[in-house]
Amino acid sequence: MIEVINGGNVASAKGFLAGGTFAGLKTQEEGTLDLGILASESPAAVAGTFSTNRIESPSVTLSRQRANSGLARGVVANSGCANCCVGPQGLVDAREITALAADHIGVSPEEMLVCSTGMIGVELPMALVRQNIGNIKLTETGGRDFAKSIMTTDSRPKDIAISVDIDGSKVTMGGAAKGIGMVHPNMATMLCFVATDASVEEGYLREALRAAVDVSFNMIDVDGDQSTNDTVLVLANGASGGRTIEAGTEAASAFQEGLTYVCIALAKELVRDGEGAQRLVEVEVAGAVAVSDARVAAREIASSLLVKAMVHGRDPNWGRIMMALGKSGVELEEPKIDIFINDIHIVHEGVAIPYFKDAVISAMSVPEVRFRVALNMGDASATAWGCDLTEEYVTFNSAYST
Amino acid sequence: MIEVINGGNVASAKGFLAGGTFAGLKTQEEGTLDLGILASESPAAVAGTFSTNRIESPSVTLSRQRANSGLARGVVANSGCANCCVGPQGLVDAREITALAADHIGVSPEEMLVCSTGMIGVELPMALVRQNIGNIKLTETGGRDFAKSIMTTDSRPKDIAISVDIDGSKVTMGGAAKGIGMVHPNMATMLCFVATDASVEEGYLREALRAAVDVSFNMIDVDGDQSTNDTVLVLANGASGGRTIEAGTEAASAFQEGLTYVCIALAKELVRDGEGAQRLVEVEVAGAVAVSDARVAAREIASSLLVKAMVHGRDPNWGRIMMALGKSGVELEEPKIDIFINDIHIVHEGVAIPYFKDAVISAMSVPEVRFRVALNMGDASATAWGCDLTEEYVTFNSAYST
Repeated sequence: MIEVINGGNVASAKGFLAGGTFAGLKTQEEGTLDLGILASESPAAVAGTFSTNRIESPSVTLSRQRANSGLARGVVANSGCANCCVGPQGLVDAREITALAADHIGVSPEEMLVCSTGMIGVELPMALVRQNIGNIKLTETGGRDFAKSIMTTDSRPKDIAISVDIDGSKVTMGGAAKGIGMVHPNMATMLCFVATDASVEEGYLREALRAAVDVSFNMIDVDGDQSTNDTVLVLANGASGGRTIEAGTEAASAFQEGLTYVCIALAKELVRDGEGAQRLVEVEVAGAVAVSDARVAAREIASSLLVKAMVHGRDPNWGRIMMALGKSGVELEEPKIDIFINDIHIVHEGVAIPYFKDAVISAMSVPEVRFRVALNMGDASATAWGCDLTEEYVTFNSAYST
Repeated sequence: MIEVINGGNVASAKGFLAGGTFAGLKTQEEGTLDLGILASESPAAVAGTFSTNRIESPSVTLSRQRANSGLARGVVANSGCANCCVGPQGLVDAREITALAADHIGVSPEEMLVCSTGMIGVELPMALVRQNIGNIKLTETGGRDFAKSIMTTDSRPKDIAISVDIDGSKVTMGGAAKGIGMVHPNMATMLCFVATDASVEEGYLREALRAAVDVSFNMIDVDGDQSTNDTVLVLANGASGGRTIEAGTEAASAFQEGLTYVCIALAKELVRDGEGAQRLVEVEVAGAVAVSDARVAAREIASSLLVKAMVHGRDPNWGRIMMALGKSGVELEEPKIDIFINDIHIVHEGVAIPYFKDAVISAMSVPEVRFRVALNMGDASATAWGCDLTEEYVTFNSAYST
């Protein structure tokens, strides 16, 4: 049903254009893209999920307000500056950057959203934005440049496009995300953009995005810290020509499946490229009494520093998995718990199975380590993703003055 | 009012005896103490706080039950094995070790508590306990040996004794704690013992301990992980001869002050000796609307990996303090926030004050870094302590198979 489009990007869906330029916001190095626009040729339904941090960037504040209208024409994004903790100037600059972008593509400012990522506590260099925003060439193939323009410490751009059959018509969905590393001090982090030519009823689009984010971006952890700028936006412009998708229909489940696929693929990419990360760990908690329990437990395990360190050291320290599980506070009975590491059964009914340690270490010497915890209490399950904790993470994040 | 007793230890109060021995539970190295007893010559009022992890050691389970009676004669403690995640054998062993200790000192098993710390998932080597427990010599000066016998990855024993004047009579309070490092895989961590010759009403003793633990052990963080074996016990045997202390009296406030002093001193020692730690960071959040807000915010800041990494790198990255503060979800208004690093005012009303970076880096090049966050919303404040995150922490905790 879902087909991944080779070489696809965030602007692969019909009626979307994108591009990026060098504006000097992130580095003096000419050619490093740091200002981008993603636009729809016609008004698109829009939905967003935003950081819940109580300190938020005015870029987030403005985009949240405008996303509430349900319709947008596009989004302007910059890297290098988070536009956060700069007093009232932050909202002034957020408004101006959307006005400049809107002017450039010929729409009204209220139809443009804005995302910023980079240093906290410094103002957006608006003079550079004014000088350079006109250089953004919006094309059907410009999605990769857009993905590059939102990178901060990411080692590579992250994008994907898929096609999915909905109600007999082919719908395309493109996505771009930026990561979750904080090499540079004070980085305010994680953005994701999804653009689709499906026609989607606004209220349902919000619902679908919330559901997709819940099992993707809300289930990943690099360092337990939460940015002031996190944003996931989806734009649906209907250019594929299909019927408008509404909640509760068969079309809605196909759309949901596609959107979830894109979000999980990009979320895992963020973790894989996590700061200093060498391994991804997938934690599945099964047999929980409730999905909420499974979610909390999976995230607690994937977020534990000691679990992350054991993944780094390829160390089958299952006691740490037990510790994190217990700390999560979910309904459990110790004598019912089974644990598997990459399908090797190492704990049965709460007690260690004698296993050959070297074999488990071998099994953990892969880029993706899988922990499966069976609570054997009920039918609910959930999956979370984390990365290992490495010396490089510490070095990166403390190496400012040294 | 409070006087620190030079060379004092957990058994400094009248009517307490302590000792430790080598039993081979932790290492084969003869002379390394790993089994200890702290005992009162007469029945003592007892109160405890225990791990809230849903996976708990049967040693915790048994001690919690017995502490509920309000009276105890002492506690037996072992290091090297957490007696956790070993199935029903754990409770059998916990009962036996208290029976052996009770027999050795001539009291009934129900009057003995037990604390275990060390590897999770392996059984207590009871044969070694049976062979060696009789070698423990209980003396008035044996507190230091007891403190040594509970060490795991601690680099030094941690104890203290103070005297405090209560109602005109001099009361002594000794304490010993073990830390919060996890060099060895699966370590189940943090124990603290306080022994006082004050006479304290049992219900009030619980209340006083809870209050002291709330502002000390509950406000420290090394790695955000929570052990399955955490225990704080206080024994009060009344040997000082003073009147029994009850809630709401002047004597109670003097007692509370002393108990809190001992708990904070030992809690800070645990953080200072935290795994791989080079610096302690004290985070004070002031001007909060409620104490609960101040507590949550101070802990969130002290626990943030990115804040810990900036303390390590002596990096005045105040954006990370803002990020952690916002993440805590407490009542705040960004334009009211002031931040100080070691008394240097670096953020005023939510915006950076131009400061000379090298001066702040110098100010952070000390063993104890202080962050003060003024929310300027109300009158409540709280203090938390953390340590820096170092490459050594990661190396220690992943260096099992490598």
